[in-house]
Amino acid sequence: MRYPLIFTRTIIVAFLSLVPCAHAFEPLPDKAPAPADNPQSEAKIALGKQLFFDPRLSLNGSLSCNSCHNVMTGGTDDRPVSIGEAGQKGGRNAPTVWNSAFHSVQFWDGRAATLKDQAKGPILNPVEMAMPSAEFTVARIKSIPGYVEQFKSVFGGNDPLTYDNIAKAIASYERTLITPNSAFDRYLKGEKNILSEQAKRGMKLVTDIGCTSCHTGINFNGPTSLPLGQGFYQKFPMFTNNPYIKNYKLDQDMGRFHVTGDAKDKHMWRVPTWRNIALTAPYFHNGSVPTLEEAVRVMASTQLNKKLNDSQVEDIVAFLNSLTGEFPEQTLPRLPVTTGNSPLSGN
Amino acid sequence: MRYPLIFTRTIIVAFLSLVPCAHAFEPLPDKAPAPADNPQSEAKIALGKQLFFDPRLSLNGSLSCNSCHNVMTGGTDDRPVSIGEAGQKGGRNAPTVWNSAFHSVQFWDGRAATLKDQAKGPILNPVEMAMPSAEFTVARIKSIPGYVEQFKSVFGGNDPLTYDNIAKAIASYERTLITPNSAFDRYLKGEKNILSEQAKRGMKLVTDIGCTSCHTGINFNGPTSLPLGQGFYQKFPMFTNNPYIKNYKLDQDMGRFHVTGDAKDKHMWRVPTWRNIALTAPYFHNGSVPTLEEAVRVMASTQLNKKLNDSQVEDIVAFLNSLTGEFPEQTLPRLPVTTGNSPLSGN
Repeated sequence: MRYPLIFTRTIIVAFLSLVPCAHAFEPLPDKAPAPADNPQSEAKIALGKQLFFDPRLSLNGSLSCNSCHNVMTGGTDDRPVSIGEAGQKGGRNAPTVWNSAFHSVQFWDGRAATLKDQAKGPILNPVEMAMPSAEFTVARIKSIPGYVEQFKSVFGGNDPLTYDNIAKAIASYERTLITPNSAFDRYLKGEKNILSEQAKRGMKLVTDIGCTSCHTGINFNGPTSLPLGQGFYQKFPMFTNNPYIKNYKLDQDMGRFHVTGDAKDKHMWRVPTWRNIALTAPYFHNGSVPTLEEAVRVMASTQLNKKLNDSQVEDIVAFLNSLTGEFPEQTLPRLPVTTGNSPLSGN
Repeated sequence: MRYPLIFTRTIIVAFLSLVPCAHAFEPLPDKAPAPADNPQSEAKIALGKQLFFDPRLSLNGSLSCNSCHNVMTGGTDDRPVSIGEAGQKGGRNAPTVWNSAFHSVQFWDGRAATLKDQAKGPILNPVEMAMPSAEFTVARIKSIPGYVEQFKSVFGGNDPLTYDNIAKAIASYERTLITPNSAFDRYLKGEKNILSEQAKRGMKLVTDIGCTSCHTGINFNGPTSLPLGQGFYQKFPMFTNNPYIKNYKLDQDMGRFHVTGDAKDKHMWRVPTWRNIALTAPYFHNGSVPTLEEAVRVMASTQLNKKLNDSQVEDIVAFLNSLTGEFPEQTLPRLPVTTGNSPLSGN
């Protein structure tokens, strides 16, 4: 029996989302599954890493994927909302790229099923990387001889340098961004003394008061067993009789409704991960909440209609801190040179 | 005798700058000298690397030193002029950070004597990283607990986290950015067959027609023996009876004159390095010339009043390609977390 007695392997499903119940915690695997149409390979991962760090994927050549999903940190950009081309601000807080391979959908509103589809978004978003079209993006990458060779070797076929393959390669790299061996994971695997008593109290508390009804699964953001593309959404905020809603403008964005147009999706959001959350301030979809302590208070109030005392908050934060994993060392890729004409010269 | 007979160890001085003459080529050393007041240490280099890659040194947290001086490439940003905060454009082409420790002055106009003084500039430049003041910068870095600890351990003393020490750490990291073992360097060290016949013809040609009167020394940008702070400046353009001046707007910026206000400094520029130049298109202080071939033509015409034929240009470009060195692998630093309040939350 690897788990404390209070946890049993109960499958959490959405209709239980507000019911405190016993459930199983799950450690983070070392590897993430790859979709059948985009198997991992060393060469594809290396190509994807180059593209992930290459600012030539943005119109002016000043931003890369890593600009907002910074792997040197918790995988975000330390900002409430991201800064795109020409200083434009996005509407939502950048989600972490670490462990994103374990999500069943991507983006705060789940509008992409896969990492590949997610990667296609920001490149063309006019307030993010601002490339005018997929064709323009492909033409720019084709103007860099080293990439032409690499796509040929990685993907083969007649026309290997496509927008879809750019996204596939990026997704392959992202799939390697996994942070195993957090104190929590080591605890689950048997190191019973690695968690402080405070963190253990926090772990019990998040179960007892109901946080883990939604924050479940290996990424604490929904049942692990969900098939790719099937999102785990929850209403936020549930309770509005508290000052946080107005103070932090938490109800101004209607989340998934903006994707589907369906009234039942108003204020529905993909449940965010808890892993490495101590490294990803500020918090919430609009990045309006600056500290983890405050985020815990807000969630207890808006989702569970509970007011926590200071020591409860500290216990939960201690537990959340135990979810910071080990970040595998990243070597910087060498980017293929733009021999002759730089594709950015005209900008 | 390590050098070909045609080269003798002649010291090139400025008044010879237009006189074709024999001279000595010099290989790139493995290490760069450090100023007495900023000795290298492993911990200081590691801290400097974190700061070099940390976007929190820019006002909105969207740009780091590496954004414009990208070590994943030839050390530049592939753009004519750099993009700063809020999409603002700078006035000049970003010089490479690789081998910059061997320059006797920094910036196109030599307005900083040392890497440390250079590092202080872009952080506070309103069109670059746009931090409002040194005090603001220090306060922000002080808000990151990990940095406070590291500065204490690296610099010691009562007040180790200062703007000067931020710049010292960055300079220490930059001093490690050296690209040895180019084909040219290996040739100088005895591998006589490593250069193609074409590159060898180019090497003779740059000497014969006078390019190396200015492009001399280990960085091909002035005599190696110059003391720190003593720049090696040349007038550019020298000859204006050619179409390049107007086409590329090469005479609109008066270079060092804008620093000194002295009429004799009009159109005086620090001679740029040739090392890794095949990787740093586009060219010239305003980044207006897109290819290396064209850059060679322009220089021959504007500086030596010579019109080169295609095969001469190709020979010189072959030689310049032999100056691409080996780039030491860079591991990405982990950036210290902004526990609690992110210093960027208010932006």
